[in-house]
Amino acid sequence: MVTVSILGASGYTGGELLRLLLQHPHVEIASATSQTFAGQYLHRAHPNLRGATDLKFVTRDALAPADVVFTCVPHGAAMKVVPGLLERGSRVVDLSADFRLRDAAAFERWYGERHAAPEWLARAVYGLPEFHREALRTARLVSGVGCTATATNLALYPLVQAGLLTTGPIVADIKIGSSASGLEANLASIHAERSGALRLYAPTTHRHVAEIQQELRLNGHAPQVHYSAHAVELVRGILATCHAFVARDGVTDKDLWRAYRDAYQGEPFVRLVKDRQGIHRFPDPKLVAGSNYADVGFEVEEGTNRVVALCAIDNLVKGAAGSAVQSMNLMLGLDERLGLTQLPLHPV
Amino acid sequence: MVTVSILGASGYTGGELLRLLLQHPHVEIASATSQTFAGQYLHRAHPNLRGATDLKFVTRDALAPADVVFTCVPHGAAMKVVPGLLERGSRVVDLSADFRLRDAAAFERWYGERHAAPEWLARAVYGLPEFHREALRTARLVSGVGCTATATNLALYPLVQAGLLTTGPIVADIKIGSSASGLEANLASIHAERSGALRLYAPTTHRHVAEIQQELRLNGHAPQVHYSAHAVELVRGILATCHAFVARDGVTDKDLWRAYRDAYQGEPFVRLVKDRQGIHRFPDPKLVAGSNYADVGFEVEEGTNRVVALCAIDNLVKGAAGSAVQSMNLMLGLDERLGLTQLPLHPV
Amino acid sequence: MVTVSILGASGYTGGELLRLLLQHPHVEIASATSQTFAGQYLHRAHPNLRGATDLKFVTRDALAPADVVFTCVPHGAAMKVVPGLLERGSRVVDLSADFRLRDAAAFERWYGERHAAPEWLARAVYGLPEFHREALRTARLVSGVGCTATATNLALYPLVQAGLLTTGPIVADIKIGSSASGLEANLASIHAERSGALRLYAPTTHRHVAEIQQELRLNGHAPQVHYSAHAVELVRGILATCHAFVARDGVTDKDLWRAYRDAYQGEPFVRLVKDRQGIHRFPDPKLVAGSNYADVGFEVEEGTNRVVALCAIDNLVKGAAGSAVQSMNLMLGLDERLGLTQLPLHPV
Amino acid sequence: MVTVSILGASGYTGGELLRLLLQHPHVEIASATSQTFAGQYLHRAHPNLRGATDLKFVTRDALAPADVVFTCVPHGAAMKVVPGLLERGSRVVDLSADFRLRDAAAFERWYGERHAAPEWLARAVYGLPEFHREALRTARLVSGVGCTATATNLALYPLVQAGLLTTGPIVADIKIGSSASGLEANLASIHAERSGALRLYAPTTHRHVAEIQQELRLNGHAPQVHYSAHAVELVRGILATCHAFVARDGVTDKDLWRAYRDAYQGEPFVRLVKDRQGIHRFPDPKLVAGSNYADVGFEVEEGTNRVVALCAIDNLVKGAAGSAVQSMNLMLGLDERLGLTQLPLHPV
Repeated sequence: MVTVSILGASGYTGGELLRLLLQHPHVEIASATSQTFAGQYLHRAHPNLRGATDLKFVTRDALAPADVVFTCVPHGAAMKVVPGLLERGSRVVDLSADFRLRDAAAFERWYGERHAAPEWLARAVYGLPEFHREALRTARLVSGVGCTATATNLALYPLVQAGLLTTGPIVADIKIGSSASGLEANLASIHAERSGALRLYAPTTHRHVAEIQQELRLNGHAPQVHYSAHAVELVRGILATCHAFVARDGVTDKDLWRAYRDAYQGEPFVRLVKDRQGIHRFPDPKLVAGSNYADVGFEVEEGTNRVVALCAIDNLVKGAAGSAVQSMNLMLGLDERLGLTQLPLHPV
Repeated sequence: MVTVSILGASGYTGGELLRLLLQHPHVEIASATSQTFAGQYLHRAHPNLRGATDLKFVTRDALAPADVVFTCVPHGAAMKVVPGLLERGSRVVDLSADFRLRDAAAFERWYGERHAAPEWLARAVYGLPEFHREALRTARLVSGVGCTATATNLALYPLVQAGLLTTGPIVADIKIGSSASGLEANLASIHAERSGALRLYAPTTHRHVAEIQQELRLNGHAPQVHYSAHAVELVRGILATCHAFVARDGVTDKDLWRAYRDAYQGEPFVRLVKDRQGIHRFPDPKLVAGSNYADVGFEVEEGTNRVVALCAIDNLVKGAAGSAVQSMNLMLGLDERLGLTQLPLHPV
Repeated sequence: MVTVSILGASGYTGGELLRLLLQHPHVEIASATSQTFAGQYLHRAHPNLRGATDLKFVTRDALAPADVVFTCVPHGAAMKVVPGLLERGSRVVDLSADFRLRDAAAFERWYGERHAAPEWLARAVYGLPEFHREALRTARLVSGVGCTATATNLALYPLVQAGLLTTGPIVADIKIGSSASGLEANLASIHAERSGALRLYAPTTHRHVAEIQQELRLNGHAPQVHYSAHAVELVRGILATCHAFVARDGVTDKDLWRAYRDAYQGEPFVRLVKDRQGIHRFPDPKLVAGSNYADVGFEVEEGTNRVVALCAIDNLVKGAAGSAVQSMNLMLGLDERLGLTQLPLHPV
Repeated sequence: MVTVSILGASGYTGGELLRLLLQHPHVEIASATSQTFAGQYLHRAHPNLRGATDLKFVTRDALAPADVVFTCVPHGAAMKVVPGLLERGSRVVDLSADFRLRDAAAFERWYGERHAAPEWLARAVYGLPEFHREALRTARLVSGVGCTATATNLALYPLVQAGLLTTGPIVADIKIGSSASGLEANLASIHAERSGALRLYAPTTHRHVAEIQQELRLNGHAPQVHYSAHAVELVRGILATCHAFVARDGVTDKDLWRAYRDAYQGEPFVRLVKDRQGIHRFPDPKLVAGSNYADVGFEVEEGTNRVVALCAIDNLVKGAAGSAVQSMNLMLGLDERLGLTQLPLHPV
């Protein structure tokens, strides 16, 4: 058994890690911290876990040493605590944004703050197994992934890899559920305001764009992605609808199938969704909720060279805790699917 | 034209008053106060009103004298400011709970606080025109109504009036939308928690029960109503499903039709909804949203003496601002329908 | 490994069985029939299962012999095919209503049809392990359960068992999601009509009442349950809010705790939910969706003898496929939790 | 008073026309036809209208002669009945797609059918007052508008008019509610499937693109719009997020403000929504539901020449019945706002 501790376990990402790890056959949870809920059962913060464990939250000081520590503390705070955990010998998976970018200057530009542990930036591995599987196997520090970045990256990656994109613009039109905002109670998040909303909240850019540029870079070239993100009526889920342009002549539907198959062949959690009939012909976050699946699909526009490339994920799973657990499995030499086999629901 | 001012106009009830009064042909809004939004256009708090008016919020001190003042301040605060407004000659419609109960001792029992203006309690009229039309015509102070109380009262009133109830228990099982919680941002109200909830939040009682007991009292006897209220997935709307027991012998469906018709004949905003076919056979808050309608219906259980009595309202309209405007119209000798003729939507 | 076939596997109940059985460590699916989808992959009907299996639907004629056959055919059709399956040696779990009632006369009264296999009625076991665990271990034919009956039965059972109820009325006020209507496309089920509905669709009775009367019968006495069911905005889930009356004197909160603990001690899928703080103090179907949990809770009304008893389930799991799989496990001498350990999600 | 008849009044567009026209001060409804509901009150099909009128549906044969006839019959059927109505002297507003395109060849290409009344195609006026106000004043036949075309057209029109667009691609990423599908009950429309969906249903094109090309044509040049449409969780509403590219140098935020103001100055139903603070900074269909408003906004991407241009409308009002009534008002020389002054709701 592997021992795991979670620093900052009372938020949505922490809760999702707990849900997945409690169902992981090789993991024992050593401790889960929460300043607010210390001394109380996990189900006080995560009511779904009632009956599934007798574990109680502990304070930050009581974090138990463990083979792996997941850190779910706010952006900016993680880079201050992670080095200490690493020095004490734990492997770390940091769910904050602090170790996602490889470049300290880029971090400072996007996050407006000097990085507190730049020496670890280069050693951290971006926790998306589809892109960094081999590096993850030997990593000591793994970063979490930006949820909308992950959906965008997985949608576009095959096109980039296959060299199919022209230099034309790429538009990433993102739709996202409310759980991505976490437990913050503010006017934007209250039900009467957020319910039924179709709200452009990030009209032209977002910090996740930095991760897209980094992860889609090929031969020193990063495609420019024009990003817009909308809050939609949904709790869990992201759909990235990416509009890209390929060389008109010589690119066929078959080429695209090949590009997507090449990119994701053998991937346990990527499903190609592109059917000719039925109502579920393209990726839809409704059909991955609760699972680690990334559903990816595409469509070529007849008569032009536009491709619509889509990816649907559960922002809390593939977009956060699921990719983190998958990365942990790789780091520990385990079957990467462990703890992640829960099938999604339908209907839901 | 009648001049109207609104004290505390940036919340949901204030916004709803503004929406209704802006469409009222005989009303001019003299001022609308908000400490938070003072100096800004109404649409900063009420985005639906963009383009409908050039009015800006003013501070409390700048409340303009007016024929009628609507007070939308918190419970407990209203009873401190209302007497002053009345003394300055305005008529007042108070949307808080402070003047709903006629009895200072009952107020203290239910609200845990001594009433600050007991002399006005007896002079205030409960602002439900269906019950107090004549008194409202001469009122100087009108109270708002409790939203779940209003749905319950309108469902049960015909049974009480017709003397059909036995001494058996009455169960009021309430379902309510999120807008009734107002603009409070807390853990219970954030979208990810509140969305899709079916949450019993008032398991056995609620302050609105005091209004039910007061308003359904007949010949000194108030029926005991066993109250339970659930938060459901809905922004606007209340459905009160009341389970009551009538004398088994001699009470027919026809008797009930007569009771409901007698009670609500000529009421401009009560619709009897009881069809034999179709999918909309009973009251449903979805079909009154945005309007001042109270949809009322009933069904007798075959073989027993239970009656299911229902009422659906929009909590912000008939359950708050709509009844307030209707009461104002009566107070001012106007057609009580003015400003309230907006039809509900379907589908929605 | 146990082999299992599903007759009529393209509906929601069939899909849910497939989802659970694909995750069951001791089950192999021999065949799944669908007249509409024969020859196509399961994910054409159940898009959540994409990638989880290579199985295809077969026609009814190609139903593979199996240790256990689940029948998901319409009410009335099941009783015609089940005897044949039993005679060929399979154990059968029938998800229709045909074998839920022990009494052929009751069946005829409630379903308006003569029972086609009355000899099997008495031998069938009602598939609710919490009530019939021992009988299930030796059963050859197990019936499914009515979803709203199950929520009501589990809420009230401890009160009945402990003899706490008076002869006063019991009101069961049911709230239910749209998946319970299955895949029927009609005016009542289309999204624009059903979305946001709070629709009393079964005002005073329902066939499930027959199952409540049967299962709550004690010493020859069945409590009369006054039933009303509402369609609410929800896809999966049922909340039964039961209003019952206990002997006023001598019944304390402690007595009720004892009654509920006695009834459900050791039950792997019943959780008592009754907290003093927090927002999830009572059962809420949002917190069991996708799982086999039945969350049960209660509250005593101060100053009266009313008890509010609640149960929240996922209608497709504990209210259908989950109880069926749990029953199958018992029938086969397996750990009854197998295939059912998936934790619910939060938030969702 | 003007008399109006509606041919095919039991669908959602017909219901919406009835709702608006019943509140129109100068209109008398002469007849409303429905083969299904003939002889029944309007509220059987449109439950929101209960109590608002005593009118009953009549059969098609009983269509009363009227100053204006609105035709809400299926695409393909309208072109067969409209000429007869025109010949009998009525003005006609046709809500189908049959008279939207000016060019019979284009009609045949997009609708796969020869046009039955090509002589009327050229005489019909496209019913969007913001584009064709003057022509509408003298029109005898007005076409309805495609709902997603209207949102796209109103978002992009100022950019086209001001000549700001480059020859770069324009992506129109559309999000739409379920009421746009009308009353069709099929698998795609049932609540359990459609609820919470984020479903790309028109991946690369749609018949509405024909209207976009026609209406945005300037000096013989139509911008190519790359269109993708998603069904989202919403009953009423469309958001068109259009990603366009302007000349990088010399185009400032101020230029765009000027372009949008120039285009929509004085328009009674277009609101520019572009705030720096608050949560409602951009158009959101939640804030126009039930009203005839089109909320339009834009944002320039810093450092690139992308413009995000948005428009939110209620598909049944501005996208159908509202534009139709506004067009009728113009045709009859009435104030174009009549019957359309209902303010939207907030929250909702």
